[in-house]
Amino acid sequence: MSLNEALKFAHTHRSRFVDQLGDLVKIPSVSTDPDCRTDVSVAAGWVAGYLERIGVKNVELYPPETHPIVYGELLDAGPEAPTVLIYGHYDVQPAEPLDKWVSDPFSPTVRGENLYGRGASDMKGNVMASLYAVEAALSAGPLPVNVKFMIEGQEEIGSPQLADFMRTHKDMLAADFCLNPDTGMLAPDIPTITYSLRGLAYFELRIYGPENDLHSGVFGGAVHNPAQVLSELIAGMHNAKGRVTLPGFYDDVRPLSKEERRELARLPFTDEQIVKNAGVPRLWGERDFTPIERLGARPTLEVNGLLSGFTGKGAKTVLPAYAMAKISCRLVPDQDSAAIERMFKAYLEANAPDTVRWELDAMTHSPASLSDRESPWIRAMMTAQEAAWGVRPLFKREGGSVPMVSDVKKILGIESVNVGCGLPDDNFHGPNEKLHLPTFHTFVDALIHLLYELKK
Amino acid sequence: MSLNEALKFAHTHRSRFVDQLGDLVKIPSVSTDPDCRTDVSVAAGWVAGYLERIGVKNVELYPPETHPIVYGELLDAGPEAPTVLIYGHYDVQPAEPLDKWVSDPFSPTVRGENLYGRGASDMKGNVMASLYAVEAALSAGPLPVNVKFMIEGQEEIGSPQLADFMRTHKDMLAADFCLNPDTGMLAPDIPTITYSLRGLAYFELRIYGPENDLHSGVFGGAVHNPAQVLSELIAGMHNAKGRVTLPGFYDDVRPLSKEERRELARLPFTDEQIVKNAGVPRLWGERDFTPIERLGARPTLEVNGLLSGFTGKGAKTVLPAYAMAKISCRLVPDQDSAAIERMFKAYLEANAPDTVRWELDAMTHSPASLSDRESPWIRAMMTAQEAAWGVRPLFKREGGSVPMVSDVKKILGIESVNVGCGLPDDNFHGPNEKLHLPTFHTFVDALIHLLYELKK
Repeated sequence: MSLNEALKFAHTHRSRFVDQLGDLVKIPSVSTDPDCRTDVSVAAGWVAGYLERIGVKNVELYPPETHPIVYGELLDAGPEAPTVLIYGHYDVQPAEPLDKWVSDPFSPTVRGENLYGRGASDMKGNVMASLYAVEAALSAGPLPVNVKFMIEGQEEIGSPQLADFMRTHKDMLAADFCLNPDTGMLAPDIPTITYSLRGLAYFELRIYGPENDLHSGVFGGAVHNPAQVLSELIAGMHNAKGRVTLPGFYDDVRPLSKEERRELARLPFTDEQIVKNAGVPRLWGERDFTPIERLGARPTLEVNGLLSGFTGKGAKTVLPAYAMAKISCRLVPDQDSAAIERMFKAYLEANAPDTVRWELDAMTHSPASLSDRESPWIRAMMTAQEAAWGVRPLFKREGGSVPMVSDVKKILGIESVNVGCGLPDDNFHGPNEKLHLPTFHTFVDALIHLLYELKK
Repeated sequence: MSLNEALKFAHTHRSRFVDQLGDLVKIPSVSTDPDCRTDVSVAAGWVAGYLERIGVKNVELYPPETHPIVYGELLDAGPEAPTVLIYGHYDVQPAEPLDKWVSDPFSPTVRGENLYGRGASDMKGNVMASLYAVEAALSAGPLPVNVKFMIEGQEEIGSPQLADFMRTHKDMLAADFCLNPDTGMLAPDIPTITYSLRGLAYFELRIYGPENDLHSGVFGGAVHNPAQVLSELIAGMHNAKGRVTLPGFYDDVRPLSKEERRELARLPFTDEQIVKNAGVPRLWGERDFTPIERLGARPTLEVNGLLSGFTGKGAKTVLPAYAMAKISCRLVPDQDSAAIERMFKAYLEANAPDTVRWELDAMTHSPASLSDRESPWIRAMMTAQEAAWGVRPLFKREGGSVPMVSDVKKILGIESVNVGCGLPDDNFHGPNEKLHLPTFHTFVDALIHLLYELKK
């Protein structure tokens, strides 16, 4: 039976799977860093080459000038069989702060049960799990379903060109559903399907004070310090209850139903676990919601970065000319990122003093999404995960953002099935990102099961 | 007459004076930067070599291991003549941000009437003005007064070893007063004596949240963001009236007398000039005091630097593990820097949430100082400045800090006469620092006058 042959193939090749994933992790495909432009192209080529070697047809790089989208297809199952569009991204977050890494972020290293490296979990590991599942199924004969691949290189910078690509290639990308392995699991033994993703609105706020950095002794006391102004503006963005104060911020938030709250409360995820995974003394947030609700079902406003004045070693008595903050909001249905930008501007107009000048740049925008939990594709995934792990998967809302999910719905008219083998302590986006290899291998099995499950 | 000969010598050598000052400015003696350690030593050797060449005796480098103090003496005037201890520092502030400099900070460049370069004004120019005055006087015969030099290399990092040096070499440094050319002038045609200097208490505040940078989507909403906490703490350090809120901050501030406020109000320095020199839309500060009072006679709290999370180009959705601020207070009589540190800690203990951990490092401490305006040395300086500029000097309080002034008083028991040829728009500590050369040359003349004035 093909399913068993495919599973056997995957089990036999586990060590090669890890080595080959390591080759991809070695490429520093940091999409936000202009210096990594070539590496991003190299990673695209690596993925395309892999697809061709396992027999995927019509493999093409769809360039924008840089950061190409890798497309490929296997359509031998014929028009009667279902078609799955497998999404992925081969780009990664910056690895900074480098000094916090135990081993080099781009020299993948196995320690214990984990593979360490930037992108090992998010999401080169998940991309390769999908490709290995297809490779294993192909080794056992023709695929029972049609498969298309859409692997992009700009997810970590907000996928600025993906929506256009989908619009331009609607027919080529036509499918019954999208498999999106860019979300995670609650624990190694809890297969998980994410049915809701938060959206994102990312901003850079710049405060300009004096024309140049000034001597804090000579001018201090008569000149408004932009770093102080920035701090005061940021401080004003939350109230004492942990709520965001941008005017109208919660107006469009779809209320959580009692049933949904009950279900979220049943997730086997304690506050203590979040405390442990985050490595903090205690949790924080909106008073009227539980941590698990705040993480998945409530919008947030976070400071992602601060920079002003002298930040080196020692003391420099400067009154800075300039202060900058990166600030982003996680959005939930039915918030609109353009409306958030207007609220942010309204807040600044009302609160920024006229002793300084400010600029607000909107950098990344994506709405939140909510999937239909009764679709046949989600049902098939549940069966496949149960076959691989021996337990039924749990449904969760997730705090992260996959802009692609709402674009796929809007442009291609299909739902996404959001899964993945990332774990809460994988530290993706931080230093020492890792992939839990036993979970990774079981996930490959689950995806093989899915390919045969869809056939029925 | 020796005075006229000395002045003539100085006038003849003006172009060489500027060239030689340029040689010193070329040396990047940034005392706070460990990478500049050798350059700091080179600058010390350069100054010592210059002193020896003009005939100064017993020139010695008093090392701590690095950043030596340059000593030298000319005692031929005999025990009946007054002795002046000339203070200076050959170290400079860091030149960052480098991209804001029109010409390289360590490639001194004359444009118009100004010499541009890091340290040209603060205070390599002022050090060399003092040395040139002595050189010119020596060219005209034996000096009418005894002169000692104490030129250090750690002023910009708070002179951590100068007080010890003075304690250890009290006899060697014995003098009637200290000439401190490390303050400035109100305008090119307004010779100025600074009779009050603010003190400094410099801190680094570090806020630690999660163990590592986290994904803001996965943890945002349940973890307190250290950059937000830092912003809130900083925002709380001033109230709506522009006053510092550290508990007890103003308790030891010596009130300004009515007479002093009247006198400060007479200074030919308008709010518009401060606005122009600072390059800001409008001024800011404590409501109940004028800008000139706030700059010289009131204490402040300034943010000198901010750093947290992702600060590069683009977007990185990180919830930072750590946030840091450099924060310093300018102090006035009779505030005590150790008490300020206690107040800062009390503020943090009362206001920092237990969702984070904080550390406060005190880095530089110096008290404020107030000079006796009736001393014979200040009288002599007034006469000398009037001879050089043709107008009587003005007295001012200054916002900057020269820790040395209070140490000289405490340890050597002598007053300082605080002068200098720096101008308010010299942009020392910022990019494009410059020295106004006509003012510099007149200042050399004034110091030559001083040497002969003291004799009487």
